[in-house]
Amino acid sequence: MTNPPRPNGVRHGARGQARREEIVRAAMEVIAERGYRGASLAAVAEKVGLTQQGLLHYFPSKEDLLIAVLTMRDQWDRGDRVADGEPMSIEQTVGVVEANAHRPAIIRTFSALLGESVTEDHPAEPYFRERYARVRRQMAATLRGRWGDRLPSGLTPEEAAPLVVAIMDGLQYQWLHDPESIDMPASFRAFLRLVDPEAAA
Amino acid sequence: MTNPPRPNGVRHGARGQARREEIVRAAMEVIAERGYRGASLAAVAEKVGLTQQGLLHYFPSKEDLLIAVLTMRDQWDRGDRVADGEPMSIEQTVGVVEANAHRPAIIRTFSALLGESVTEDHPAEPYFRERYARVRRQMAATLRGRWGDRLPSGLTPEEAAPLVVAIMDGLQYQWLHDPESIDMPASFRAFLRLVDPEAAA
Repeated sequence: MTNPPRPNGVRHGARGQARREEIVRAAMEVIAERGYRGASLAAVAEKVGLTQQGLLHYFPSKEDLLIAVLTMRDQWDRGDRVADGEPMSIEQTVGVVEANAHRPAIIRTFSALLGESVTEDHPAEPYFRERYARVRRQMAATLRGRWGDRLPSGLTPEEAAPLVVAIMDGLQYQWLHDPESIDMPASFRAFLRLVDPEAAA
Repeated sequence: MTNPPRPNGVRHGARGQARREEIVRAAMEVIAERGYRGASLAAVAEKVGLTQQGLLHYFPSKEDLLIAVLTMRDQWDRGDRVADGEPMSIEQTVGVVEANAHRPAIIRTFSALLGESVTEDHPAEPYFRERYARVRRQMAATLRGRWGDRLPSGLTPEEAAPLVVAIMDGLQYQWLHDPESIDMPASFRAFLRLVDPEAAA
């Protein structure tokens, strides 16, 4: 995680870093329960045994904590799968969907924040707008890497990229509501069979 | 709208009905601004020039108003396109996506509620779970009506149905965040070309 200089004595070093991650995880839990607007710094502080004042040493505002939550999710997605800036392969993308199916808590937090982010003046709005633009660009590169300038169906990578992203987001809501009925990795592979009926992904 | 008997003198008749619709529209606006948890009956009442007590004559609780919002959206979707219980055709489904692209306010309300509905004990959770099960069933019937038991890609209607629903939901978030970059009807038609490269939908 980038650790820019911050006001009022933000804790650094390995121990500070571990503490920050612990706080971010607690924030994810609170957001999954109540959404971001409904989340309080007091509730996060209580989960990690800090006073609210103590929490502010690590994250000077609720918005800073929100950004840390969103950034950490992206890091987990990429994990050690792929170097920064490199597009994932199709197989790595399937790997993300498989990993997601084993982390409902994170997916719940993220899906709740995505929903909230379309409400008025939400602090996560710029993050999601920029993230989508970036993820669509990376996904187009992924598709081009596999199929070149035309997918088997005739679509361009740029036409197909928003569809891949939409499938991933959309399946998450159906799965969170009904995990017995929705098998995310199987559904995502079914989608890839639409993209390329010849290739079993 | 169904109008079951309600406690404490709910207003009926054409005028009461018009007033109820006005209140539901106001509630949609307030939810689009602040989400459901952040919405107050007082804010809705103010928008329609009622006291909070006056509002309670039409909707005895905030949850009743939420259910009315969700129900009205479904009615608008089906509109006079198709009789109750009948599956839509593919062309009618495209028509819904085209209509959605002209009603960002409703889509914003619905997308905010979908996100919130995955948080703990949310009153819209049963609605969305049941709605998804029903919409997937209807979509499978729609796909079967057009392509029979196997889509051109080899998928069954039941395999493809959650994908169609996911595409519609997922595109809405990308479009709300970046309407300049995302053309929902064009993207949905691109998806249908994946389903059937032969048929221009």
